[in-house]
Amino acid sequence: MKPGGEDEAALAGGPNECFEAAVQLALQAGQIIRKALTEEKRVSTKTSAVDLVTETDHLVENLIISELRKRFPSHRFIAEEATASGAKCVLTPSPTWIIDPIDGTCNFVHRFPTVAVSIGFAVHQELEFGVIYHCTEERLYTGQRGRGAFCNGQRLQVSRETDLSKALVLTEIGPKRDPATLRLFLSNMERLLHAKAHGVRVIGSSTLALCHLASGAADAYYQFGLHCWDLAAATVIIREAGGIVMDTSGGPLDLMSCRVVAAGTREMAMLIAQALQTIDYGRDDEN
Amino acid sequence: MKPGGEDEAALAGGPNECFEAAVQLALQAGQIIRKALTEEKRVSTKTSAVDLVTETDHLVENLIISELRKRFPSHRFIAEEATASGAKCVLTPSPTWIIDPIDGTCNFVHRFPTVAVSIGFAVHQELEFGVIYHCTEERLYTGQRGRGAFCNGQRLQVSRETDLSKALVLTEIGPKRDPATLRLFLSNMERLLHAKAHGVRVIGSSTLALCHLASGAADAYYQFGLHCWDLAAATVIIREAGGIVMDTSGGPLDLMSCRVVAAGTREMAMLIAQALQTIDYGRDDEN
Repeated sequence: MKPGGEDEAALAGGPNECFEAAVQLALQAGQIIRKALTEEKRVSTKTSAVDLVTETDHLVENLIISELRKRFPSHRFIAEEATASGAKCVLTPSPTWIIDPIDGTCNFVHRFPTVAVSIGFAVHQELEFGVIYHCTEERLYTGQRGRGAFCNGQRLQVSRETDLSKALVLTEIGPKRDPATLRLFLSNMERLLHAKAHGVRVIGSSTLALCHLASGAADAYYQFGLHCWDLAAATVIIREAGGIVMDTSGGPLDLMSCRVVAAGTREMAMLIAQALQTIDYGRDDEN
Repeated sequence: MKPGGEDEAALAGGPNECFEAAVQLALQAGQIIRKALTEEKRVSTKTSAVDLVTETDHLVENLIISELRKRFPSHRFIAEEATASGAKCVLTPSPTWIIDPIDGTCNFVHRFPTVAVSIGFAVHQELEFGVIYHCTEERLYTGQRGRGAFCNGQRLQVSRETDLSKALVLTEIGPKRDPATLRLFLSNMERLLHAKAHGVRVIGSSTLALCHLASGAADAYYQFGLHCWDLAAATVIIREAGGIVMDTSGGPLDLMSCRVVAAGTREMAMLIAQALQTIDYGRDDEN
């Protein structure tokens, strides 16, 4: 770790400068993704759907990281594509950017218009701000620690619901599709529907589901099998909108644990946590 | 997006006049719904979430039907709220409007921004056109028999995917929540995920899910427990975008059967139909 003075120097210009950079890069990345969504790549025989997403994923991640590295040379990065290529996924006390260049990869491949860029920022292992950009709807969600959460300038406020039988609950399927994992996933959904949750929604983007929660359009979210880059930015936004982000055990959030419960109220989060069976996805910092 | 000629005047006023009226009323209804979504009704202690939706549902349905009745006094109507109040749900050869004033009722109650107005029109029991308005994203989907399908003026084209293992599949949970029905619902989802569908999405609005299918953003849709007013408009839009709408048995669509499979290709629709177990929801015209 850098000595304190240097650490502060690393934030030259202060966290505001970092936040402004995140907003600018999220918008710029969103423009690239929007363009990629409208291009007629599907008819190309050279590029498969998976190649397409990898191409744009890499392009966007490289753009964001190279720009941030130029401006903040001492900062560290945790990002989806770099991690997939073998980079370590460890959160140190250094100023660290936690980036998902395209959240909703499967949606992106299918041009299902629910796709986001997510940029989180932590210092001393504490999340400072989050910026999430809904690329097709052009909605910019932001949260800065102690300064509130906003969508396109409008203040966000979570739902105050505490009754599971009045709740709209969001989740995602997760990447593992072996029969045992699928059965646990469906059994969790069954438990919530059996508890008479108003509804369960699966939109294909963890970060945007969490943004719906922050805006009060849903009462709870849970997932097994998401990553720290899905959670980092959204966690600040939800907390600043008055909500709770915790571990599925009911304990404090562990950003690297690949599992989460979030809700507008602690009561609702606990009800969800108590209803769930654990699906083991390992840890981000042990792969 | 304006329809072309002043031909085929089999109806009072002609089908173009009916289509124009549907577009105008969908936009007008959408404005009312958008306003209701932003009003701070949640803090009112007088009105429960369910009252709220009923109020706006009735308001919008009455607006649409009273206006259409004025312009087309001999036409018949099938509409969600009127049916709930005991009106017969039978499609005769007469010109008939099939209306869902707010599709995505649970979303609407929670202000989850996936809510639509759906207006379909049939003559001699054949669907002539469909108009669906995504209220919050202000997307107007239209389809007229023989004239193509459009979203905000842009032509729609379904996906040509025939391989279930490359498919994004949409569904909805349906209104029955007894344990046996839930188990069948989840078992159907399990079968599709087991067949390695890329993903399953549940967005809480049948008509908007079907519009995603029409626009090529998803490859298939299936549901048990939807109604003719969820299906009528969307069916024209999907067919005019080149897609297939059929019964879950693999046979021809029965608008009153409370079940449907839709897909970009017949092959995909058949694969879905073969994978599904039937959930019995009765018939719209027998209640």
